[in-house]
Parts: sequence; structure tokens; C-alpha cells
Amino acid sequence: MTVTQATFDNPPLLLGPGPSPVSERIRAALARPTLGHLDPRFLDLLDDVGQRLRHVFGTENATTFPVSGTGSAGMEAAMVNLVESGDTVVVGVNGVFGTRLAEMGRRLGARVVTVEAPWGEAIPQAQLLEAVRANPGTRLLAVVHAETSTGVHQPLELLGESLRGGDTLLVVDAVTSLGGVPLQVDAWGIDVCYSGTQKCLGVPPGLAPITFSPRALERIRTRKTPSSSWYLDVSLIAGYLGSERRYHHTAPINLIYGLHEGLVELEEEGLGARFERHREVGERLQGELGARGFVPFTAEGVRLPQLTAVHLPEDREEGPLRRRLMAEHGIEVGGGLGPAAGKIWRIGLMGHGAQHTSVDRVLQGVDALLEASN
Amino acid sequence: MTVTQATFDNPPLLLGPGPSPVSERIRAALARPTLGHLDPRFLDLLDDVGQRLRHVFGTENATTFPVSGTGSAGMEAAMVNLVESGDTVVVGVNGVFGTRLAEMGRRLGARVVTVEAPWGEAIPQAQLLEAVRANPGTRLLAVVHAETSTGVHQPLELLGESLRGGDTLLVVDAVTSLGGVPLQVDAWGIDVCYSGTQKCLGVPPGLAPITFSPRALERIRTRKTPSSSWYLDVSLIAGYLGSERRYHHTAPINLIYGLHEGLVELEEEGLGARFERHREVGERLQGELGARGFVPFTAEGVRLPQLTAVHLPEDREEGPLRRRLMAEHGIEVGGGLGPAAGKIWRIGLMGHGAQHTSVDRVLQGVDALLEASN
Repeated sequence: MTVTQATFDNPPLLLGPGPSPVSERIRAALARPTLGHLDPRFLDLLDDVGQRLRHVFGTENATTFPVSGTGSAGMEAAMVNLVESGDTVVVGVNGVFGTRLAEMGRRLGARVVTVEAPWGEAIPQAQLLEAVRANPGTRLLAVVHAETSTGVHQPLELLGESLRGGDTLLVVDAVTSLGGVPLQVDAWGIDVCYSGTQKCLGVPPGLAPITFSPRALERIRTRKTPSSSWYLDVSLIAGYLGSERRYHHTAPINLIYGLHEGLVELEEEGLGARFERHREVGERLQGELGARGFVPFTAEGVRLPQLTAVHLPEDREEGPLRRRLMAEHGIEVGGGLGPAAGKIWRIGLMGHGAQHTSVDRVLQGVDALLEASN
Repeated sequence: MTVTQATFDNPPLLLGPGPSPVSERIRAALARPTLGHLDPRFLDLLDDVGQRLRHVFGTENATTFPVSGTGSAGMEAAMVNLVESGDTVVVGVNGVFGTRLAEMGRRLGARVVTVEAPWGEAIPQAQLLEAVRANPGTRLLAVVHAETSTGVHQPLELLGESLRGGDTLLVVDAVTSLGGVPLQVDAWGIDVCYSGTQKCLGVPPGLAPITFSPRALERIRTRKTPSSSWYLDVSLIAGYLGSERRYHHTAPINLIYGLHEGLVELEEEGLGARFERHREVGERLQGELGARGFVPFTAEGVRLPQLTAVHLPEDREEGPLRRRLMAEHGIEVGGGLGPAAGKIWRIGLMGHGAQHTSVDRVLQGVDALLEASN
């Protein structure tokens, strides 16, 4: 147990599934003087964060804010606010995060109907909608837009339109997609969408941007029982976000400074330019790895540019090479989770990590490791 | 909506009920390069945080860590892990935070027995124990050590001993007490104790240090149903803290750097010296305010040194003077909550704010405001 300055010397290039690299500018923002959570200056900043998040989510939803917890707290905030015991919920499961959504639903007493696809493949939208139709009274459909465990880019555009007019709310996990690939909460008819700061927004972990549609808020207002969570109860948090500024819990002030700065950076770059940057470097990496014998884990046509999941050439053992990539080349990439553990690498090119220089460094490292071991 | 550099110019002296002032050294620690949550360097730092928290809590509990949320997430982590639907729980209620504990218990389906005392007074330990005896099968007794809404320093020392051998766990809210007044988790027989970083530890808000006794973990292991919260489920979080390092959620890396630095500062000062510093400046402030006609809200003998709750002289309206103290003197103090709203000030001398210079500034401000308005 030795924590010294050396702990922070030569920090690795973060090209795993998150956290992604954080710019000096955002880190400097974290270090700004702490203000009180009821200080009008801080409240202005928090309002500005909400406005900027609306832009990134593609929504007009008034109730758009950072949950005071990591991305999984955002998932829990979505589920614990919307789900009541006895509800039927349909969840798309093709990786760790769909599995987690289903688990949260069960813990809340819901009857969870899963629609499964093999890890690495998308779930056909028609199957998700069919499950909703086959289970009358389904209260919500939850699906993961960017499966961090598999690199799958789940198509969503047809879901909201088909659910419109019915009583099934659409919940979307955008932890790894927000800021990396296009997402349109309002146009796609999404009722609750949550994300994390440590992926394509390039901000340290600890906050979960979330947005609730008026329809979702109405569902919450008419719950039969209060949500089992006081901390994540959006009907209470709204009292702090709104004009009453009613104290609920102390906001994580300095982290919110970091998120604000990240959203300012995003505005300067432009959302479209950021998507294009992620697309360009991700496609380049995937092409170059393919040329070196890496085999995609993710099905063709649904590969996220910001998260590349690949088998190693000739089924080489991933763990030792991954650790050497860190030790000898200073690059962090991720291993597989669940059934993909020990089988794949997950390489994130997210936020500030989505650069050609990142691709160059990964390829140099990979070439050196593969050559040395041949 | 104007967030500019001016937002952070001339930051106020934070002498409210939290957040407390954060040192430059801790703010600089926040800005260190982000490491991955599975990077061995970060895991060493997290282990070191756990070890340092054990010292501050006065415990040998292996399961001692910062919850990835604010102090209220710590409260929810205690309740959601220990309480099952149908349980009887006894909660001491003499302010906002006891009220919140009871509310969380009810949301989890417990039968909540409250033991109430007037706001500003402590709850006799004998009454708490009597309520446990009068309700056979009581699963836990929850009490607030330092009521931030009233400034009450609740005596606790007799509770654990009396509960020993029985089946009632002792839960203590130490959000405002940890690091400010003595607290001995093991010696006092406390099973779960949680705090916040933004009070006497002097670290930005966003983390909730918590500790679970072996008896509490056994209770959790033998639950009839899983906790309704996946995010706060300590049986899952333990898999990340333990040697398996099983991914649960992405830890809020940079905030944990800040907590680590705050705990290093605390070790350098010494825990006893920190208590003495809080005691000395708090008593001085309370004496000086008394001499100026401020009337204590908190009963004699149970006043926290780190949080002073007072009526203004001659029952002056608190709001306008509080806003002028901020505008003209750059000092943030808090107003009252609940039944004390509009009636009192709450002045925190916590963490780095517990200095004679803070007392000097408050008194200068108060003297100027009272003189000007006479």
C-alpha cells in the first residue's frame, strides 16, 4: 500500500471501456473553489448544465440533470422511479447492461420479460415490439443503445414511434453512446434516457446525466406507492432543480464543474463534429486491427465506433498481452465481461481519447507485442 | 444564465451546514490524472482510503469504503441493505435527518417506530432502548449522531452495549460528526455508520464514507430477498473492494483522490487535535454570539461545536441579514429547515472552516450588520 506522487506519474492512455481520458481543462475545472449547493452562482451553473445536456440529449425535457452517482446510478434512477412492484417490463438483453436492467427490474418486484440476442448482436426492433404486444399492459420497454460489454450499436429509431399512444414507456441506456453517436431523445420518442460522464463526454466518473419526458413524470406522479429510493426520487429532486430550490441532498459541486466544462468543450467542437471524429477514428482502428488478424466480436453493421470489441489474432490469450500493453506501452484497454471474459479486448476511443494519435499508439503497441511473441 | 470566470471569483467563506471550505491541496488532488477503476495504482489508493477511514471511524471493519454518492446515499445504503419489508425499525427523530431515516424505512416497507424529541433537544438513550424493548423483534435502531438541522450532539455510548447479544442492529448517521467530535464505531457497538465528505473532513461533496460490522454483513447475507437497490448493494460492492476486484460500477476516481488527500491531511493534524480545534473555535463562537444577544436554538449540554444553531438577537428576521452577510461580507451561513425555517441561522465551523479567523470574520460581519440596522 504505497500511494505516492509516483501513483500519478506517467498516467496511462485510457483506451478501455471507460473512464476515458480527461482534458487538463476539465481537470482544472474540478479544482475550482467549492461553492454552496444553494449559492445562486452554483445554481446558475447547474441550470446551464441542464440546458447543455438538453442539447446533447436532443430534448426539450425540463427535467434533465446529472444524477449524483455514476452511470449505474442513472440506470437505477430510471428504473426505481418508473417501476412498481407487479409491473410488467420488457428488457432487451444482449450483454452486461441489459442483464443489469433486468436485474434491477426484478429487485423492484417487476415481472421482467427479456428479449435476448447473442452477445455481439443487436436485438431486432420487431422482436422488442412483439414482446410488448405479447404482454398486454407492459409498463416499460428498456434497451441499451450502446452495449459497453459487446460494442453493439442497438438500432432504436422505430421503437418510440410504435409505442406512441400506448401505455409503454421507452427507457434507453445511453451510457456509452451519449456524445459518441447520434441520439435524439425527443425525435425517437424516448421517455427516460440516462448516461455517464466518463465515456464520450470525457469527464471523470461520478455523475449520470438523465432526462425524463413529461409522460414519464406523469407516470411517476401517479405511482401507487412511493419509489423505494429516497435518494433517487425524481419527484423530490425536481424540488431542488425547480424554482423553489428545495434542499434535497448536497450536490457534488466540483464534479458538476467538471461536467460543465466538458459540455462547454463539446459545444465548441460541435456535436456533429464530435460524432464524426468518433466515427472516423473508430473505423480506422477497426480496419487496421482487422488487417492484423484481430477478429471482430461484434456483428457487422452494428459496430460502435467508440468501443471496439475484438478477439486477438490466432486466439492468443488476451490477459497477458493486455497487461503488457499497459506495462510496456502505457495503454489501458479492457478485457471481456461475462461469457466474453478472457476472450476479447475492448478498446475505447471515447471523448478525448478518440484521436488518430490514440489509434497510432495502440497499433504501435500491438505491432510490438505481436512481433515480439512471434 | 451567465457562467463565467466571475462565477468563481471571490468565493464565499463556507460557514454553512456544508459544504465546508476545501483546501487548495485537496482541490489540486481532484485535478490529478484520471486512472482506470481497475488500475492497480488506483486500487492501492482506494485500499489506502479504506484503511484511513477505519482509523477515523474507530473500527476494524473490513467493509469500510466511500459510497459513490453524497451523504444521503450513505444513509440510503445503510437502510436499503439492512431493512426488509415487514421489519420493525426504531428511529430517533428530532430533526430533518432522523425524519429522513424514518421516511427511507417506510419506503422500504418497514414498520417504523419513531422516538421523538423536540427539535434542538437530544433523545434520551433510555427512551430509544425502551422503544426497542417495547417492540420485540426490532431489527434495527437508527439514530443521528450530529443533527445538522438543529446542532444537537446526540449521546450514543450506552446504546450499543445495551443492544449487544440481541438481534437489533445499531445504525448511526455521522454525516456531520465524523472528524469533528469523537466517534468510536467498534467501542460503541455501532453496526453501520455513514458520513459525508463535505463536513468535518473538508472534502468536496459526492462521497459517503460508510462502514459495516461483521454482524451487519451477516444480516445482509441472510436477507430473505435481495435489496431493492442494485447500485448500493454492499454484497455486490464487496466483490470490487475485495481481492477478486469484480467490476460493479465505475468508481468516481477523481473525487476519491480528494478524499484520500483529505484523510492524509487529517492524519498529519491528528484526529485528537482536529476534535480539539473544532471544540475550541465552536465554543468561542457560541460564547461570542451569546454575548451579542443571539439565543441558542440547541439545548445546553448537547451543542455541537461544529454546527451552531441560533436565533437572531431580538428575533430579527434571519433571511435578509443572512443574504447581506453573503453579499457584503462574503460569508455563507445556513438558514433553518422544517419548523426552524425562517427562524435560525446555522453556522458551521467544520473541517478547514474551523479556524479562529472564521470566527473573527463572522463576528465582524455580524457586528457590522447589527450596528448598521440599529
